[in-house]
Amino acid sequence: MDIEQYVLDLRDKQAITELLFAYCAYLDRMDLDALASLFTDDCHVDYGPEEHMRSSGSQQLRRDLTRMWRWKRTSHHLSNVMISLDGDNRHADALSYVIAWHERPDGSTATMLGRYQDRVVRVGEQWRIAQRRQELTGNDASFDVRINPFVRLDPPEPQ
Amino acid sequence: MDIEQYVLDLRDKQAITELLFAYCAYLDRMDLDALASLFTDDCHVDYGPEEHMRSSGSQQLRRDLTRMWRWKRTSHHLSNVMISLDGDNRHADALSYVIAWHERPDGSTATMLGRYQDRVVRVGEQWRIAQRRQELTGNDASFDVRINPFVRLDPPEPQ
Amino acid sequence: MDIEQYVLDLRDKQAITELLFAYCAYLDRMDLDALASLFTDDCHVDYGPEEHMRSSGSQQLRRDLTRMWRWKRTSHHLSNVMISLDGDNRHADALSYVIAWHERPDGSTATMLGRYQDRVVRVGEQWRIAQRRQELTGNDASFDVRINPFVRLDPPEPQ
Repeated sequence: MDIEQYVLDLRDKQAITELLFAYCAYLDRMDLDALASLFTDDCHVDYGPEEHMRSSGSQQLRRDLTRMWRWKRTSHHLSNVMISLDGDNRHADALSYVIAWHERPDGSTATMLGRYQDRVVRVGEQWRIAQRRQELTGNDASFDVRINPFVRLDPPEPQ
Repeated sequence: MDIEQYVLDLRDKQAITELLFAYCAYLDRMDLDALASLFTDDCHVDYGPEEHMRSSGSQQLRRDLTRMWRWKRTSHHLSNVMISLDGDNRHADALSYVIAWHERPDGSTATMLGRYQDRVVRVGEQWRIAQRRQELTGNDASFDVRINPFVRLDPPEPQ
Repeated sequence: MDIEQYVLDLRDKQAITELLFAYCAYLDRMDLDALASLFTDDCHVDYGPEEHMRSSGSQQLRRDLTRMWRWKRTSHHLSNVMISLDGDNRHADALSYVIAWHERPDGSTATMLGRYQDRVVRVGEQWRIAQRRQELTGNDASFDVRINPFVRLDPPEPQ
């Protein structure tokens, strides 16, 4: 093993993981300026199949996410972070799982379970999200936002 | 500190953590061939006290987990990953926490909270699960599968 | 990059992360002796604004947490662990997210979602929690313990 290369890889994985966590913390705090700075200027973010759920560019994303003010509180719990580095220490794919809890002003709540599939790139010393696609693995009955469905394999044919 | 040895340890912990995350991703996708490849050929998996909840061998596990098709969707969120390496960089114990959400075809849902206690071994360049024991730390009223109970300490005697 | 310094940093982050996970495991097990050993002797722990939710010193904390026996089961799922080292490899700030599920003896459940803001210090070879502040990002209707509120930014003024 090339120790130095492996340490560089670990450092990148750690930095990318912290990037994904920062997204959650800034979103729950609704610090949209800080959140936008985690994305590349020309990012593409795809939360769901409807047009208003897709944003191009970090400034558009910043404006679009003001829709999250309709919730009174949110809490985004990220886990299962799996990162695949390209080998140039400048690009990577990241997959993560999220439990996203939301509360409406009337006190009712809505929870979604999902995955983020991200393409991340290094810009200077910082890792940023260049592409994000959100998929829905589960939700409670109260959550009614259309998210890209996560697709399971088909069950085997009965024999 | 022996830097090189410590980096080897970190590499193993990272690889084992990714192994545990891969289990969740393959299970939610119901890619049982890929899931079986995460276990040793002669693995022992113990999800609960009933016979049909125990599998011996990765091929038996693969067949037994077809029972998960009875759910319409599942989402497995893994966290609190604690790994204790044996020192030979070939064996380790892993403890992790899971929130497992399940949805039935009728739309009703069932959630369990639990822990995986795993014995993992290195097979060639890959880490695999040799033994898995699942324990139940919590569940909602709708989840009625029998899982090994997680045991709390006894409360102190009143004085 | 100074490889050796970076590896020391990674080792510290890993050890601190495991400290936070150990807290959850010991609390769910109600092994309060082991839990108390994760804190400095003179720690300050602030779970909420009421006096009985604040503990000074690990021995007081140990006694105060016997209140958790009122729950029949708990399950603490920690994620989003973000650690900022001071640079002396002896002090750090840690932020983490928790989903804390609780069950009462009557079978009813209560879930809170929150964050731990910790100040951790190295004592000999061990990292310990010197200060912990818990903030509430969300809760279900059944959870009625007063926790320090997590504060979102104010929405922009309508224009």
